[in-house]
Amino acid sequence: MKNFLNDNFLLSNETGSRLFHETASKLPVIDFHNHLDPLTLGNNTIYPNVAQLWVTGDPYKHRAMRINGIPERLITGDATDQEKFKAWAETVPQTLGNPLFHWSCLEMERIFGVEEVLRPENADAIWEKCNDLIREKGLTGGSVLKSFNVELLCTSDDLLDDLSPNKKATDNLGMIVKPSLRADSILSFAPGWIQKLAQQTSMEIKDLDAYELAISKKLDDFEAAGCTLSDHALDSGYSFSEPNKSSAAKAFSRVMDGNTLSEAEKEALQNQLLHFLGVEYGKRGWTLQLHMGAQRFTSSRLRKLAGPAGGYATIGNTIDIESLCRLLDSLEQSGNLPNVIIYPLNPADYEAIATLTGSFSEDGGAGKIQLGPAWWYNDHKLGIEHHMKVLSAYGLLSRFVGMTTDSRSVLSFSRHEYFRRIACDLIGRWAEAGELPQDWDMLSGLVANISYYNSKKIVKLS
Amino acid sequence: MKNFLNDNFLLSNETGSRLFHETASKLPVIDFHNHLDPLTLGNNTIYPNVAQLWVTGDPYKHRAMRINGIPERLITGDATDQEKFKAWAETVPQTLGNPLFHWSCLEMERIFGVEEVLRPENADAIWEKCNDLIREKGLTGGSVLKSFNVELLCTSDDLLDDLSPNKKATDNLGMIVKPSLRADSILSFAPGWIQKLAQQTSMEIKDLDAYELAISKKLDDFEAAGCTLSDHALDSGYSFSEPNKSSAAKAFSRVMDGNTLSEAEKEALQNQLLHFLGVEYGKRGWTLQLHMGAQRFTSSRLRKLAGPAGGYATIGNTIDIESLCRLLDSLEQSGNLPNVIIYPLNPADYEAIATLTGSFSEDGGAGKIQLGPAWWYNDHKLGIEHHMKVLSAYGLLSRFVGMTTDSRSVLSFSRHEYFRRIACDLIGRWAEAGELPQDWDMLSGLVANISYYNSKKIVKLS
Amino acid sequence: MKNFLNDNFLLSNETGSRLFHETASKLPVIDFHNHLDPLTLGNNTIYPNVAQLWVTGDPYKHRAMRINGIPERLITGDATDQEKFKAWAETVPQTLGNPLFHWSCLEMERIFGVEEVLRPENADAIWEKCNDLIREKGLTGGSVLKSFNVELLCTSDDLLDDLSPNKKATDNLGMIVKPSLRADSILSFAPGWIQKLAQQTSMEIKDLDAYELAISKKLDDFEAAGCTLSDHALDSGYSFSEPNKSSAAKAFSRVMDGNTLSEAEKEALQNQLLHFLGVEYGKRGWTLQLHMGAQRFTSSRLRKLAGPAGGYATIGNTIDIESLCRLLDSLEQSGNLPNVIIYPLNPADYEAIATLTGSFSEDGGAGKIQLGPAWWYNDHKLGIEHHMKVLSAYGLLSRFVGMTTDSRSVLSFSRHEYFRRIACDLIGRWAEAGELPQDWDMLSGLVANISYYNSKKIVKLS
Repeated sequence: MKNFLNDNFLLSNETGSRLFHETASKLPVIDFHNHLDPLTLGNNTIYPNVAQLWVTGDPYKHRAMRINGIPERLITGDATDQEKFKAWAETVPQTLGNPLFHWSCLEMERIFGVEEVLRPENADAIWEKCNDLIREKGLTGGSVLKSFNVELLCTSDDLLDDLSPNKKATDNLGMIVKPSLRADSILSFAPGWIQKLAQQTSMEIKDLDAYELAISKKLDDFEAAGCTLSDHALDSGYSFSEPNKSSAAKAFSRVMDGNTLSEAEKEALQNQLLHFLGVEYGKRGWTLQLHMGAQRFTSSRLRKLAGPAGGYATIGNTIDIESLCRLLDSLEQSGNLPNVIIYPLNPADYEAIATLTGSFSEDGGAGKIQLGPAWWYNDHKLGIEHHMKVLSAYGLLSRFVGMTTDSRSVLSFSRHEYFRRIACDLIGRWAEAGELPQDWDMLSGLVANISYYNSKKIVKLS
Repeated sequence: MKNFLNDNFLLSNETGSRLFHETASKLPVIDFHNHLDPLTLGNNTIYPNVAQLWVTGDPYKHRAMRINGIPERLITGDATDQEKFKAWAETVPQTLGNPLFHWSCLEMERIFGVEEVLRPENADAIWEKCNDLIREKGLTGGSVLKSFNVELLCTSDDLLDDLSPNKKATDNLGMIVKPSLRADSILSFAPGWIQKLAQQTSMEIKDLDAYELAISKKLDDFEAAGCTLSDHALDSGYSFSEPNKSSAAKAFSRVMDGNTLSEAEKEALQNQLLHFLGVEYGKRGWTLQLHMGAQRFTSSRLRKLAGPAGGYATIGNTIDIESLCRLLDSLEQSGNLPNVIIYPLNPADYEAIATLTGSFSEDGGAGKIQLGPAWWYNDHKLGIEHHMKVLSAYGLLSRFVGMTTDSRSVLSFSRHEYFRRIACDLIGRWAEAGELPQDWDMLSGLVANISYYNSKKIVKLS
Repeated sequence: MKNFLNDNFLLSNETGSRLFHETASKLPVIDFHNHLDPLTLGNNTIYPNVAQLWVTGDPYKHRAMRINGIPERLITGDATDQEKFKAWAETVPQTLGNPLFHWSCLEMERIFGVEEVLRPENADAIWEKCNDLIREKGLTGGSVLKSFNVELLCTSDDLLDDLSPNKKATDNLGMIVKPSLRADSILSFAPGWIQKLAQQTSMEIKDLDAYELAISKKLDDFEAAGCTLSDHALDSGYSFSEPNKSSAAKAFSRVMDGNTLSEAEKEALQNQLLHFLGVEYGKRGWTLQLHMGAQRFTSSRLRKLAGPAGGYATIGNTIDIESLCRLLDSLEQSGNLPNVIIYPLNPADYEAIATLTGSFSEDGGAGKIQLGPAWWYNDHKLGIEHHMKVLSAYGLLSRFVGMTTDSRSVLSFSRHEYFRRIACDLIGRWAEAGELPQDWDMLSGLVANISYYNSKKIVKLS
């Protein structure tokens, strides 16, 4: 029987333990997609208390508290930080079996040296202990990331965002804080956004051609700032049809004239722009990330209370594979298929997407199409193992680009350790069962590639 | 190597064994959804033979016999009970690996003390032995349920059913036999049904408002009889759209005038009624059960021979998650979202529905939305483990409402033991692998909640 | 810790090992569906080199090479055989965890006695060694099959193919080489195909009735040549609607007049023909194989370079179960439902199809509807175990028709050993965990049936 959270946490076999301790744990962390704020990072702001570092901004915890029946006031409402911390403490023991239990225990132990499970009985004491430690050590986002051995991370930035905070954070933190493009607003046509783009680029945007030109100019700025990745959310129900420039141009004119588009017009314009952007990414050698299959509209009530990303979204319908193939094929036919990482939210899509990694190729471009790491609700032992088993069986695990947090919280970077433990355990288990050869260099090389070296390539770190 | 069906059947680890023997096995059984007949139960009828207790009314066994090539005459035809018993005996050895093998062996052992596997060679002897025992012990539905330590069960009753048999069964059996509402006929408009409703409620039903009023009156009767749950079957292909009272009212008028509705009219009316009923359940604090995704139309031939629920249905297409979200959101916006248990028949939906448990919430309402226990074709070790792993990873296992049989047979209540063994084994395995803390109170509390206490809340047993 | 590829490769428990060595490994191989060329087989052609035996014609390897970034010239282009062999050698170490790694090691060891893992460093030496051995032993397709103890195989043949090569191969190889019908061209209306059918049957085909008559005549020829199986590809997006003879007849006339059909016309005609063929198969007691859910249109570029079956297809959308039920029901209602084996490509369909095995039945026809063995991209340890676990839980494993390669390569017949090891391991594991009784005859009988005897029935080998 093994103790919870000891050195060999999640490591059930000797080979796996050796792979983790001798190889994986020694490699730095590259996190190529997350939602950290580069401004906060660069400013070295010390956290006012443990709730703000750990609870109040984390939609995963909010969601668990809701399932646990905690009143919304104590989740996203006007309760004090300490009240919210205590509401979370009430929930932790109810998360047994959920990744939040593992993450919470890991984070408490790694950062604060707290070995007890947080619960109502010890919530006040732990609240004090953590806050003291934050003050004593002057805990900042940067210092937490340092403790996780982060070498490089990519924040997610709007096309119109100022990228100088990334530079400042890079200078101040002693780690590379690259921008990456969160491109959804380009396809959203929010009031004022296009006007702001026109100002920033000093261009007149009166038609679709001009819009595309202005976007391209901003993409050059991102490139100059070290960006190598972009990201689109293609939610549940998404369908791609062959772009038609003239319908799209007409729809764009209607947007500029202040009209609201019909669903068909919107789709025509979005198709065209997604295709245009894909080609632009391809020309620059970027990697296009597709986050697919979320159902973000669930409870209107929670949307009002907690905002559009408040933790109440769910896994939506499976991906229309035929449509996704059309998108990739149309980019390939243009001669500029970028590298693509597809993150399905519905794990029933894993096998299809893992297989799709063999459907498009490029001479010399290993790992051109990727099944991205277990995303969002799938980021736990069950999901990570499922992802790796499926990718191994239906694709090439050795070319897997590895873990990224996709998180808003610096503490989530402990999930790289979590991922590496699970990966090493699985590979070690296979080897000990005689399903892989007992060849240390082969096994260790595989672990090193999926922990670090493959992601190094897509962020173009030399 | 472990012996089949011994004390530690399905218990592969010490912690799991202790959890089962010291905690789970000692708790009474609550079965909040099944299709037992309260009249038969209350009458204490002694079974005429083992075939009628065990074989002739069980569509699961009929299905296995069909796959095994048994002629339909020996399944649902005019063969004698003993012939049917022997046809089943011929099939049992072919069910190796299927839950029917486990269930059959468990039931034979627990009720009749038969330890051999039933097969053609011993079928006559076992037929005699079981029939003797039925006579000697005077086996009735009630006595079988007693032997499984049943404290409370909820039968499934039509809105027009007489509920006095539930009361009589409760009095005669020394256990609570509550009614619960099987609501599908409210949305089916079978000839005469609405007229019967009008008679029972002494109301004139000439329009949709009156129909809803009459339904509401009957719901009050159910409530008075202790009902706390209702149940709707939303089969493969189901889609919900925002209800429109006036279209629905028009469609209802056409029904009352004896017309057959178009698909669109029917859908409009059903949408409205489902929404109306959801609100009514919510007002009463009931739990709405949604059994989703069955494909009940397969073989027309078997439908004719074996009736509409003859065991030949299959798992249908996955649920349209977007549509399900619309239904729940529209109920929540009305201010009366009931507790909801969703039972997907297609296990490819488990992750989506487990995630959906975090998409709607209520202050103080822990476990508001539930992924119901592994339903129908999923009720076996593979399905139960899959359900629990998914629910743990994507939701909160601790709030899980636990097992129910959904069965027509008293013998199926042995599946509570089956479920508890599998649950204890899984939780014990996690603990011994160091994935959960070695904290007996925590582990035992978790097992107790999902075996008994969480279901106690939804049946409002104090 | 166990050594890779030893005698107990993939056998993790004693019972499983005994089941494999004492039962499964001793049974001959029946392969009821593959794409071997009977002409080549019958001619006893010696392979010119190991690349042509092992690499250049294998789309599975091509696909892995593409994921590995190998230039297309070295995959399907004008590179030499040795260059292609070396490109494959470069890829093998990157396939760790993929079935190709297992298969490659197995094939190298079983046929060539090569125990090292192929890699760039040893590629030249192994190239020489294998080519020497091919020359020395005079390796032919037939001799390789002999070494795998093949008793009977069914090739896939177009309705217009000459079937005499099957007879010649049977005579020359000392094993039965049956034809089976690959029926897709009947529903494709390729230019000239119908004219050729008319010539071969000496019939005038001027309308749909005549077309069906000519087809029926050719089916008789297949039957006379020993055919008992046919095969249809129903790709991603397939939908069946009730056939309408008169619309179909109209569409057929338009085909004969040289018109291109609309999608609706094509569907009407295909529905009718599929139904007609199903009935014809049923009348002859054949087994209809449905290969469902492939997405064959992905990269237009690779389609041009590598042909329509070049290894770049992917898993498509899940099956429309309702539609599939309509197809089977309409055949059953005609009174001539053939035996049916359904091979879903998307494993998210396994539970639905495994359940469907109980939805249609025939007196005396055990295993009437089958969930086919893990097909194509699913043919690996993960997929085979998934298939068997699902089939056991949702159907009757004992009636499973077992493994077939669906391959273009004689070396793939080593996958029967691979399948049998995995099956024995799983059944042994269940028995040792006390989930099955320790009854050798029962366990060994189950293994024998799914390894050999059940497939013997569908190929009607006495």
